[in-house]
Amino acid sequence: MILTVTLNTAVDLTYRVPALVPHASHRVTQVIERPGGKGLNVARVLGALGHETVVTGFAGGATGETLRELLAGTTAGQPVRDALVPVAGSTRRTVAVVDAASGDTTQLNEPGPAIAPAEWAAFTARYAELLDGARAVALCGSLPPGIHVGAYAELVRLARGAGVPVLLDTSGEPLRRGIAARPDLIKPNAEELAQLTGSREPHRATRDARRRGAHAVITSLGPEGLLAATPEGLWQASPPAPVQGNPTGAGDSAVAALLAGLVDGADWPTRLAHAVALSAATVLSPVAGEFDESAYESLLPRITVETPATAA
Amino acid sequence: MILTVTLNTAVDLTYRVPALVPHASHRVTQVIERPGGKGLNVARVLGALGHETVVTGFAGGATGETLRELLAGTTAGQPVRDALVPVAGSTRRTVAVVDAASGDTTQLNEPGPAIAPAEWAAFTARYAELLDGARAVALCGSLPPGIHVGAYAELVRLARGAGVPVLLDTSGEPLRRGIAARPDLIKPNAEELAQLTGSREPHRATRDARRRGAHAVITSLGPEGLLAATPEGLWQASPPAPVQGNPTGAGDSAVAALLAGLVDGADWPTRLAHAVALSAATVLSPVAGEFDESAYESLLPRITVETPATAA
Repeated sequence: MILTVTLNTAVDLTYRVPALVPHASHRVTQVIERPGGKGLNVARVLGALGHETVVTGFAGGATGETLRELLAGTTAGQPVRDALVPVAGSTRRTVAVVDAASGDTTQLNEPGPAIAPAEWAAFTARYAELLDGARAVALCGSLPPGIHVGAYAELVRLARGAGVPVLLDTSGEPLRRGIAARPDLIKPNAEELAQLTGSREPHRATRDARRRGAHAVITSLGPEGLLAATPEGLWQASPPAPVQGNPTGAGDSAVAALLAGLVDGADWPTRLAHAVALSAATVLSPVAGEFDESAYESLLPRITVETPATAA
Repeated sequence: MILTVTLNTAVDLTYRVPALVPHASHRVTQVIERPGGKGLNVARVLGALGHETVVTGFAGGATGETLRELLAGTTAGQPVRDALVPVAGSTRRTVAVVDAASGDTTQLNEPGPAIAPAEWAAFTARYAELLDGARAVALCGSLPPGIHVGAYAELVRLARGAGVPVLLDTSGEPLRRGIAARPDLIKPNAEELAQLTGSREPHRATRDARRRGAHAVITSLGPEGLLAATPEGLWQASPPAPVQGNPTGAGDSAVAALLAGLVDGADWPTRLAHAVALSAATVLSPVAGEFDESAYESLLPRITVETPATAA
């Protein structure tokens, strides 16, 4: 199975309003409630691709109950197994307020529950057990309050100690510390990479991130695809044309495809082509965070994977 | 006991952000979760004043569970008794996004669950039972989807049939229909009254609303107090000076004071003075929807209640 870790899970609410006007009152015309947090999104996509997937992290309070019910109700493909660890605090909500006319989104993210030291210890024990049956693990998203900034470095080391390939998808100081523990793979976007390396030139920044400790760095270039610096070489994977749509979850779909390719033993160009196609198919889906299966299939043979000109 | 009805209960969330910027992403720095809906707010204030109070209406789903837990956890004064009727749909949330610097609030209101005919029938049966022990009843707030627009008229008639004085606090068509069923008291604000009567002149509009069927009309003039047209005469009740603060819940506090005065058999000037003082003390409280007890006591003797100059 593939394990995904989401330390700051969320109930994601999407509110549709005619247009958000600060300091006015709005009737929400549509409410969508989904299980959220990057690792949960990755797991849902893996499930839809037919992979056996387990999610862990924290869930607590009434929102935690809601999260687990929503997760159990996910129906596409393989069901995702819930191995979330209970906590005293309440799982956070995120609210995406979507203007009906323009599709523009205003995001409000609750901070998440404070995690007590005993809860962190209970989590790491559970994580170590789960690693035992895992073929790959993804560590995803922000840290909730109360968890030390080196938490991901600790989890990377535990995975490496257990011989399980580990992908780290986070940002800021947790990413900086996590890289030093030598994860197999990181998947920053250009902004996260610039924060980490100080460089806004993606080719240079991607190679620099590898030197900091990650075995492979897959940088998201947004609608232009992915840039990869791996032990086997450098690649740039691009869709036939940038796609228009809702980019929510596109990065999580790329992570899912990279994990699937890893456990399937695919070569890097194949993994990257799948990641770009799945990511674009997610942007094209009318439902945020889901992917359009026929778009995925039709895009896949049209992804170009090349050695970048600046690789030398 | 005093009964309050809230057909569209809510879990009220308050999110503090530095400043709300449309189409940007925001970290919420503080989350407050409270039981909401006008009738629940009225009941909480009545409880704090020491009155035995029962709430009914609908609660459903995980948010309904949260609502009931929050209600059970209300600690000030008399506990409020929960006689909410379960429904299949989920109780709505409201989100108030408060800009930390200015205190300006952006409001997002979910529509609420659709109520099935059988659920409405279960509610009216419960309501009729509760009326049996009630000394007064308040019907508060908007109607959730699926409930017929004459619902408040039906509930007013049931209360009058049971000999229980009934206060109606709603707006739009449900208010228009409800008034025709001759409630003992309505408490519109100037905007609701203008919608009902077509007149923006509050003295005229207040008297006009009485002619439509309400035995007494208490119109909120916001920071300037209350205007009353009753079978015993016309009054205007004013605070010594307009107060500055958060007006959330000020109207619900006025309703609570009017109900308390009614069951205590106080005369109209006394009821109105309490309503204006409690309303101002709610504006002055640092916590939205609660009232400042010492402000209430110090304001009470300083409220003026006069026959308005335009009464003749």
